[in-house]
Amino acid sequence: MADPWIEAYTFAVEIAKKAGAEIRKASESEIKISTKSSTVDLVTATDVRVEKIIIGALKEKFGEDVHCFIGEESISKKGACILTDEPTWIIDPVDGTTNFVHGFPFVAVSIAFVVKKELEFGVVYSCFEDKLYKGRKGQGAYCDEESIQVSDNIDINKSVIISEFGTDRTPSKVKKICSTMERILKIPVHGIRGTGTAATNMCMVACGAVEAFFEIGIHCWDVAAGAVIVQEAGGVVCDVDGGPFDLMSRRMMCANHIDIANRVIKEIEIFPSERDDGQD
Amino acid sequence: MADPWIEAYTFAVEIAKKAGAEIRKASESEIKISTKSSTVDLVTATDVRVEKIIIGALKEKFGEDVHCFIGEESISKKGACILTDEPTWIIDPVDGTTNFVHGFPFVAVSIAFVVKKELEFGVVYSCFEDKLYKGRKGQGAYCDEESIQVSDNIDINKSVIISEFGTDRTPSKVKKICSTMERILKIPVHGIRGTGTAATNMCMVACGAVEAFFEIGIHCWDVAAGAVIVQEAGGVVCDVDGGPFDLMSRRMMCANHIDIANRVIKEIEIFPSERDDGQD
Repeated sequence: MADPWIEAYTFAVEIAKKAGAEIRKASESEIKISTKSSTVDLVTATDVRVEKIIIGALKEKFGEDVHCFIGEESISKKGACILTDEPTWIIDPVDGTTNFVHGFPFVAVSIAFVVKKELEFGVVYSCFEDKLYKGRKGQGAYCDEESIQVSDNIDINKSVIISEFGTDRTPSKVKKICSTMERILKIPVHGIRGTGTAATNMCMVACGAVEAFFEIGIHCWDVAAGAVIVQEAGGVVCDVDGGPFDLMSRRMMCANHIDIANRVIKEIEIFPSERDDGQD
Repeated sequence: MADPWIEAYTFAVEIAKKAGAEIRKASESEIKISTKSSTVDLVTATDVRVEKIIIGALKEKFGEDVHCFIGEESISKKGACILTDEPTWIIDPVDGTTNFVHGFPFVAVSIAFVVKKELEFGVVYSCFEDKLYKGRKGQGAYCDEESIQVSDNIDINKSVIISEFGTDRTPSKVKKICSTMERILKIPVHGIRGTGTAATNMCMVACGAVEAFFEIGIHCWDVAAGAVIVQEAGGVVCDVDGGPFDLMSRRMMCANHIDIANRVIKEIEIFPSERDDGQD
């Protein structure tokens, strides 16, 4: 049988790099000449422009009526994201907008492709590092052209965990996030890190730089591509309570090994977050 | 008057890049082929080897009896670090050893030069990013050959702050560190980040990617070079209580502006740490 999605996969890599170049250009030309305090609008403009580049190219290539699109900027604002059985692109044009505004060097383009509600492939381009991560169901994960694997360390005390503070500053949530970090540090672990970019964080798990990453409050477009990459690099992706991973739940845990995931999960203080698909 | 330290400054840049190349080589050849769980000894070996390369080159160039040396690996283990009026090199061969073990992409070589207890220049080479930061008293700060400045944002609510969890897992310290982060988040700020490398964190302040970075428990070799770079980029370096910066105190706050520093300082829960020079 001919490979039905090879062309889409190859095209996604191409378009992610093109979008990343656009982000770098925006950073050099616009962010640099503006004052830091006036960059928020510039970022939104870049977000919208880059998403248009990506979705425009995909629609031109594959036809508007054939594929569905779920993306941070244009589509999600029209209402909840409903994942159907149709071939669907899930796109975050600029993952790490706070980093982008400030010039912190982790900003990624994240493109995933889902068919019959199952992740077919994911592409993450970390555009300031100039590293292209990709993974395809059953065909492995790569950074640039090199095969990547998760860490082989299953000793939690020798692990580095990624955890983020997120952008929601509701006191009760901030309290739970900080308390969770305190509990994880006391396991103890080697360290806690965070790049400020969910897509890049997942690639850090995939290439073995950290053992686990989890977050509550992320969106499907932040983690869809990374989920394939982690799984294809030999890792696990699940819910923050240890149950099955649900793309629309806004909850995600990924790790090099299920034992590491489960040990970290014991310390996570879960707080509620509204689903991406608006379901209860 | 001829510039007395220009040769030392130029040589420090050269040697930092050479040391960084050695670290990259060690990462590629040794870390990759070993299992994660057996890398701690390799790191120590790399630390010692890189420090020998740096100090060996400096001694050969400038004479063993003319300059003093304070470094993480070899020298600090012989006792407290006493800073005299003599020209003194303060060196961290591998800043970010946890990152180095895990392959998290922030590892720096940090070289500072102090004369009459005053910082003359600092060089930080972020060796996986391949970025060379340098600063010299009264002569500005640079990333590669480009002049860098701190962020011009003085609105704390639009700021990104770097704070690290450190390596000490004493419960009372971990509690204060996490509680401080919670308080800072609630100011609120845009975000909290951390590269896991004090030298790189300070360069992030210097180049305007974040507004402030502070840490209790760091050593003089972690921050000496970065302090010059931040100051020469237009930033401030002080104590975590707002008092004057003391290189040997193991406490450091740096920021783009004194107002940002003071606002963050209000939230810091200070805990005791033994000085580098063993004084009370």
